[in-house]
Amino acid sequence: MGTQHSGRPRVVIIGGGFAGLTCARGLARAPVEVTLIDRRNHHVFQPLLYQVATAMLSPADISAPIRRVVRHQRNTSVVLGEVHEIDPERRVVVSDAGEIAYDILVLGAGARPVYFGHDEWAKCAPGLKTVEDALEIRREFLLAFERAETARDEDERRRELTFVIVGAGPTGVELAGAMIEIAREVVPRDFRNIDTRSARVVLIEAGDRVLPGFPARNSEHADRDLRRMGVELRLASPVTEIDERGVAIEDERIEAGNVIWAAGVEPSPLTRDLGTPLDDRGRVEVEPDLSVPGHPEIFAVGDLARVVDSATGEEVPGMAPGAMQMGRHIARLIVREARSSAGSRRPFEYRDKGTLATIGRGRAVATVWGRAFSGWPAWLVWALVHVFYLIGFRNRFMVMLEWAWAYVTYKRGARLITGEDSADEGVGWEWGRSPRQ
Amino acid sequence: MGTQHSGRPRVVIIGGGFAGLTCARGLARAPVEVTLIDRRNHHVFQPLLYQVATAMLSPADISAPIRRVVRHQRNTSVVLGEVHEIDPERRVVVSDAGEIAYDILVLGAGARPVYFGHDEWAKCAPGLKTVEDALEIRREFLLAFERAETARDEDERRRELTFVIVGAGPTGVELAGAMIEIAREVVPRDFRNIDTRSARVVLIEAGDRVLPGFPARNSEHADRDLRRMGVELRLASPVTEIDERGVAIEDERIEAGNVIWAAGVEPSPLTRDLGTPLDDRGRVEVEPDLSVPGHPEIFAVGDLARVVDSATGEEVPGMAPGAMQMGRHIARLIVREARSSAGSRRPFEYRDKGTLATIGRGRAVATVWGRAFSGWPAWLVWALVHVFYLIGFRNRFMVMLEWAWAYVTYKRGARLITGEDSADEGVGWEWGRSPRQ
Repeated sequence: MGTQHSGRPRVVIIGGGFAGLTCARGLARAPVEVTLIDRRNHHVFQPLLYQVATAMLSPADISAPIRRVVRHQRNTSVVLGEVHEIDPERRVVVSDAGEIAYDILVLGAGARPVYFGHDEWAKCAPGLKTVEDALEIRREFLLAFERAETARDEDERRRELTFVIVGAGPTGVELAGAMIEIAREVVPRDFRNIDTRSARVVLIEAGDRVLPGFPARNSEHADRDLRRMGVELRLASPVTEIDERGVAIEDERIEAGNVIWAAGVEPSPLTRDLGTPLDDRGRVEVEPDLSVPGHPEIFAVGDLARVVDSATGEEVPGMAPGAMQMGRHIARLIVREARSSAGSRRPFEYRDKGTLATIGRGRAVATVWGRAFSGWPAWLVWALVHVFYLIGFRNRFMVMLEWAWAYVTYKRGARLITGEDSADEGVGWEWGRSPRQ
Repeated sequence: MGTQHSGRPRVVIIGGGFAGLTCARGLARAPVEVTLIDRRNHHVFQPLLYQVATAMLSPADISAPIRRVVRHQRNTSVVLGEVHEIDPERRVVVSDAGEIAYDILVLGAGARPVYFGHDEWAKCAPGLKTVEDALEIRREFLLAFERAETARDEDERRRELTFVIVGAGPTGVELAGAMIEIAREVVPRDFRNIDTRSARVVLIEAGDRVLPGFPARNSEHADRDLRRMGVELRLASPVTEIDERGVAIEDERIEAGNVIWAAGVEPSPLTRDLGTPLDDRGRVEVEPDLSVPGHPEIFAVGDLARVVDSATGEEVPGMAPGAMQMGRHIARLIVREARSSAGSRRPFEYRDKGTLATIGRGRAVATVWGRAFSGWPAWLVWALVHVFYLIGFRNRFMVMLEWAWAYVTYKRGARLITGEDSADEGVGWEWGRSPRQ
């Protein structure tokens, strides 16, 4: 790396997600040298990824170049590259861009979809973790209507107009709501041979209610709203098979051209390099201060850590607010220790600001200060909170406008099918085969 | 196809570009059945593609779903698919979506980059005709700075920070101006190891002046502005070699990590199916009414036709206004003949509304009503004209806001590097190898 060692502690942050980026920003004026490494050049506001996947927003609306975010921090370098290995003994991370030595390491590399032993499902049922995932889902979603429009028989048409989402967490619920709205309200008049209002959206959940991590009243409201909107729910229904033509649950086969995986994630494999026990979901069981057992100089944060709130003893939910609070906690801790060799570390305390999920136009569920509510008030809270947290004023402003516009006109702004199929240069894929078409 | 034959003339339009889409809209209330076929689901406002390529706008800002544009025309069907062949004898086009019979055919399939016998240059020097092209150029452009930041030696760094554009028509000039502005004004503070202001932008032109199709005074102004902004010009310099490490012109080798092709296009190969003589650039030499010689029922329009203005005897330049006027001319002609078996056809007359090219912030050249001017007034005209012509109010509004915002803050909104390299899942390509990453 081109950076010299100044004698100040070297903090290396892996991952520019909510935890990593918040931590980096918290170190802006600290007497440390920060290196933030990510394999993307941009931070993504993941809670709104489903809006990219459903052609409501453009990727740029929910993303911010990481360099831009930390450009005024002279103590911070950004490296675009992938970390392949962590060596806790030598205190280096091995990346595309060479070895990077650290005094303090913050591991916030996040999670990725996991198919519970069925990796072959991945190609039929993409997950939604990156901008690329969202663009692929958008592409396939929009193409399904096109294929249905030119379908040669009724079976094929029905299959193309059936959308299955596996997993009824917030992402699954939000996708299902958006998709049924588009099929019923947005696109009907654009097609001549099909009635897009007949499209089926099926939401499958292994657990016995939607939004399993939410208070029960939120689940009930969401369940009612989804059914009213026309989403078909299959609860307590673990998926037993996914292939290119559909999905099977215990005693039902659903023919579907479009399947999306929103059911589970697993932590980055970098966790395995730490030499510390992982929980049953592969997450690092961190100390109360968020450090890795036996390695006070390594912190694990966000989706790849199992964090227990030291005040309540409850597990911190894997959502953006928790990740941001973790990043801030570690930044404060690093600043204190860099300024004075302070004694014991303060344990992490999670401030539960509530849970939120949107279902559709004017429909959402929320729990704030222990009170569950739904409908318009919840939707308004949801919209305000999400716009507020989007990084950068420009994005905030644009997202508000896009929403306002979409709300008034019921159009979808980003309804593009991009990508090219090298085989016929025709319809193709966002991720076609030719590196440079 | 699912459409029945109603007895009304069947008009098939190939290509949803400026010519084809304008023609389709002109037939909205005509007693004909219109089928518009395109391999994309969206119309692209090509004059602003370079702004997507330079991370100023998102693809959705300059695109409109074709179905959306013609949704209120009950006589119009949109088919997403590629046309493989035209059979003028049987009066059918052969497409992905099957055979489509026509009574009247409008061929507006456009053009694609041509490398003058050096097809191997295509992979080193992408052209800029589609949204995908623009996203690839954006990606490579932004990655160049990243690669330079982590480069291990000075030669590599210089090479990554050298951008070569081949062809100094409007697209080449606009790209060169935007790129030097970004390197000098937008990104310098984002990097720690490199001075992006030292980046070279080299614009190569085989002819002896920039903007060869423009009045000489515009060329002079553009030449002066580009040099002032720091663009290096190589005029009267045909490219003799392009490889992955750079470009050669007669007696100079330029080491460059990024080469973009803006030098030439060739018409869609569908022109060859018409059995009519083509000019030396492969374009259809149409009759004064824009029909194909010997086939009064086939019209060729836009970039794939050589059209001579019947009033002045001059060739109509291959830009958006001309294409739109052609589309409108044909629509009127079809409407007249569908309503009454009218006699002779009116020849196409081109209304020259002027030429425009932008160079940078507040810099442009224009010729309107025969008067050449430049600087701020030209830029303002350029901005207004382009915003005005963008299809759909929403896009217009958003583009204005994006511009205003970028202008005030000197930020670039769409600075995303997306895509994935299947080889290492790291930096990768927008068009990586795995169909579903």
